[in-house]
Amino acid sequence: MRHFVEELDQLSQKLLEMCSLVESAVQRSISAVTEKDRFAAEDVLRNEARINQIEIEIDEFAINLLALHQPMATDLRLIIAALKINTDLERMGDLAVNIAQRAKSLSEEPMIKPMVDIPHIAGLVQSMVRKSLDSFVLRDAELARSVLSSDSAVDNLRNASYHELISFMEHEPSGIRQAVDLIAIVRNLERIADHTTNIAEDVLFMVKGVDVRHHGETRWEQPEQ
Amino acid sequence: MRHFVEELDQLSQKLLEMCSLVESAVQRSISAVTEKDRFAAEDVLRNEARINQIEIEIDEFAINLLALHQPMATDLRLIIAALKINTDLERMGDLAVNIAQRAKSLSEEPMIKPMVDIPHIAGLVQSMVRKSLDSFVLRDAELARSVLSSDSAVDNLRNASYHELISFMEHEPSGIRQAVDLIAIVRNLERIADHTTNIAEDVLFMVKGVDVRHHGETRWEQPEQ
Repeated sequence: MRHFVEELDQLSQKLLEMCSLVESAVQRSISAVTEKDRFAAEDVLRNEARINQIEIEIDEFAINLLALHQPMATDLRLIIAALKINTDLERMGDLAVNIAQRAKSLSEEPMIKPMVDIPHIAGLVQSMVRKSLDSFVLRDAELARSVLSSDSAVDNLRNASYHELISFMEHEPSGIRQAVDLIAIVRNLERIADHTTNIAEDVLFMVKGVDVRHHGETRWEQPEQ
Repeated sequence: MRHFVEELDQLSQKLLEMCSLVESAVQRSISAVTEKDRFAAEDVLRNEARINQIEIEIDEFAINLLALHQPMATDLRLIIAALKINTDLERMGDLAVNIAQRAKSLSEEPMIKPMVDIPHIAGLVQSMVRKSLDSFVLRDAELARSVLSSDSAVDNLRNASYHELISFMEHEPSGIRQAVDLIAIVRNLERIADHTTNIAEDVLFMVKGVDVRHHGETRWEQPEQ
């Protein structure tokens, strides 16, 4: 049993390493856009392989834990949450790569169009990333809930910048390529935010045993033997 | 033990229902675009709630199976694959909703820009959806591999239509809104294709016990007791 507790702890440690790699990828991809930092973009592209590799390690580790031990209740929920959070983190890493690629393409020519609300959206998304990962580390249900409530602010900012960029393109056809890149960056940021809400939902499931997806709060029942 | 076999079978049945709902959502969202079929778009929006609900049911059912029984090897792999495929299917449903919303917005005015390669891409993506779901139903590793090999064709078509739409916008600013909708539809189709490759990878994991993600073929080891 002591062995199992140590292994669960190892799983958490691996997932924390994944969290920190992905959080850094998101931050660097945002710097690549807002500060035209090509080195940051290259960093993100270089670290993708490591994120992909650790995703597989975590999956295998978690599945082996399920196979070797017969975890119940809290431990089972932790392992299931780790599997789900792992998938979300890997996808956030992919989205950071998409952003870094757009940033590289944008950095090749002088900006015609200012950044609209991108630094603002990016700041909000970074804070959701941080809070969702902290809520996992601290097993903090309140913090997880605060991530869920930020999601509509991101959607509103996304819509506003989308309309602004479309009308910019209509008046300035020479900036169309840049505007399309900016729209894609905003959409990728919004998708990162969506993954932080998935993580927050998994944390609530893990901590409270409630499934809060799709805005219904279904109580997760303990299985009856 | 007979009880457990029946429950595993029930899990597969629920997942098949989910497959069929999502496949139909993808098909209807494509008809909404290519045939300007507003009823099809409305169908997709109406069925989203059912897909979200069954996703939660499958998750709970699978987690209860893990909690109640101590599945090993093949059974454990089936349940883990079901959890992962379930997540992918729900996201494919979301992407079909995005496509249906764009289709509704496009259907409000006469098309300025023809559909570029969208019917072609859509046909390819639909065939990947079908093959990935069939590979799950039939436990067919070869069929699953054929899904993985279609992915680069979708990426190439996506890139070609993307460049075509950008240069259309540069010459025809009055069509910018439509072109942006079409770019989004192509991107959503491509993301549906990505999820079919995730499903194919899960099928290979389930059938063969190999992890083929990120193009490395790591053998999934049976845990040592």
